Amino acid sequence: MPVGTQATIKTLHPAEVRATGAQIVLANTYHLMLRPGLELIEEAGGLHRFMGWRGPILTDSGGFQVFSLAAHAKVTEEGVVFRSHIDGSPRQMTPESVIALQLGFGSDIMMQLDHVLGLPAERRAITDATDRSARWLDRAVAAYHDQSGGSSRSVLFGIAQGGMEADLRRTSARFVAEADVAGCAVGGLSVGEPKPVMAAMLEESVPFLPVAKPRYLMGVGSPEDLWSCVARGIDLFDCVLPTRAARNGALFTPDGRIAIKNARWRRVHAPVDETCDCPACTDFTAAYLHHLFRADEVLGLRLASAHNLRFLAREMAAIRQSIEAGRFQAAADTFAARYRAVGANDE
Amino acid sequence: MPVGTQATIKTLHPAEVRATGAQIVLANTYHLMLRPGLELIEEAGGLHRFMGWRGPILTDSGGFQVFSLAAHAKVTEEGVVFRSHIDGSPRQMTPESVIALQLGFGSDIMMQLDHVLGLPAERRAITDATDRSARWLDRAVAAYHDQSGGSSRSVLFGIAQGGMEADLRRTSARFVAEADVAGCAVGGLSVGEPKPVMAAMLEESVPFLPVAKPRYLMGVGSPEDLWSCVARGIDLFDCVLPTRAARNGALFTPDGRIAIKNARWRRVHAPVDETCDCPACTDFTAAYLHHLFRADEVLGLRLASAHNLRFLAREMAAIRQSIEAGRFQAAADTFAARYRAVGANDE
Repeated sequence: MPVGTQATIKTLHPAEVRATGAQIVLANTYHLMLRPGLELIEEAGGLHRFMGWRGPILTDSGGFQVFSLAAHAKVTEEGVVFRSHIDGSPRQMTPESVIALQLGFGSDIMMQLDHVLGLPAERRAITDATDRSARWLDRAVAAYHDQSGGSSRSVLFGIAQGGMEADLRRTSARFVAEADVAGCAVGGLSVGEPKPVMAAMLEESVPFLPVAKPRYLMGVGSPEDLWSCVARGIDLFDCVLPTRAARNGALFTPDGRIAIKNARWRRVHAPVDETCDCPACTDFTAAYLHHLFRADEVLGLRLASAHNLRFLAREMAAIRQSIEAGRFQAAADTFAARYRAVGANDE
Repeated sequence: MPVGTQATIKTLHPAEVRATGAQIVLANTYHLMLRPGLELIEEAGGLHRFMGWRGPILTDSGGFQVFSLAAHAKVTEEGVVFRSHIDGSPRQMTPESVIALQLGFGSDIMMQLDHVLGLPAERRAITDATDRSARWLDRAVAAYHDQSGGSSRSVLFGIAQGGMEADLRRTSARFVAEADVAGCAVGGLSVGEPKPVMAAMLEESVPFLPVAKPRYLMGVGSPEDLWSCVARGIDLFDCVLPTRAARNGALFTPDGRIAIKNARWRRVHAPVDETCDCPACTDFTAAYLHHLFRADEVLGLRLASAHNLRFLAREMAAIRQSIEAGRFQAAADTFAARYRAVGANDE
């Protein structure tokens, strides 16, 4: 899922996002409640109409943002109070209020409010936050039924937490697995921990989540993450990486991530990726993209963003195909043998 | 002609520029000689291929930019020496070298090097610069024939100057009218002088230019300028205004220029201009554009740029139609009765 934090996938028209092959987009409840606000989005006929996206929209509850972006966030059992990072105004989020917001937006997939901790954190704090997230899930489910009257086309996902504590991960996953939700997410990973730790935590979480419901890993991932996390049972991803990296001139290719501003691309009068069917690769050369980035031209940001999203969509299509053909591991090995992660192709 | 200074119409894909109805785009020799440089553009197969624009390209000679952007510009009879505004490197332009550059780019319409003065300037300096521009035109024509061998698909335009001196304007226009060029431009206007002065200078220039050749007013104009300058015989325009204003949130509408960031647009759940068929007006509401600009989102810059270019292209189409129907003045009056220039709609 491409990330459209402020009701736009940065730099792209919704038709271009759709053309990348993306099926769902993510928007952020935290950002949208502050600007333009629920009332305005309701007036506009909902988030889909407002932003011109005809496919499904998943909205994050804001749990992650309120703890990373907002000033003076304070958690109580009731919810979290904080100050807007835009104008400093005092705000509040509760498990119930974020359901109201997301129903108001007309989200297709709503996320529960969870208590997200910065790392490193003590085991006791992680236990508290994980337990609180569980209680907030119960309240979210109740609020969902109360507010939607059982007739909503929006569905609710729960979020398993647990920090980097194996037993808390298991307990939390089991709790979410039992909840009356349409899908199960794993949160609080890819927050700076080493990749093997993330893999270990996934292995303590995913096996306890029902296979019949979608399993969503929040905030992940890179091209290499997709293979390793699908291998561990993940179905859905969201991440700012493809579009954020793109705006910094980092493009995904089958050989790895490249830095288009680097002088080695200056005279490459061929597409960045000959095998790619995105607008950057079909309409322009690497030399032109290099020029656009060197000259600080917005078209470069657009083309790179569309390219990286298309790269991930094609990768996910390849992953699905390899699973259906019963050759996932071979395909993962082929990818890994060629793909070089950050920096390796930047010289 | 939309302006693509650095081989890109800022924020837009060439297909979007084409969709606005624009037929020719302008690129800047000064910028392109510095970055990415002639050699690279030649390697790429010319400017059209490099930037993915399939229509005609007009390149400015760089005369205007070298006097406005470059550091330490010094004019001699030979040409102008200056330092790059990017890296401070010493550079030179002569009437012959800018023909070589433009032929190398593969420009469809090439402009002569002219000597552009900042205003205010003394009559003596204006006389000198205008005379020099005339001598440089002769050298440009000779260089064009020498370098292209008479077989080029590129054509050359001359530029009439003369500052705000009526008699110099007439002399210069007569000189360009006699030259062996495919079209005639009027330069050195819209540089800060009042609109009636520009109109007066046009009236001292255009009547002396041949009607059988296109007459091009450089660096103009606004929606209101197009009517008044076509009335004085101008056929071709270029200006950064539509795209630059767009990036500042100023959109053209039949009622005048509006500031989309203004609070009055926050809750307007209708297109900025109901009569417009651009992507901004067909796919989105004014409220959404307002949100994009408030949130500093690039999609806003794109949509506003496409909208303003479309507005001008539709305006030029209306102008042509009114001329063909023999009712130009009535159409101009209708436009002027409704259109409010800068600021009037910004409250």
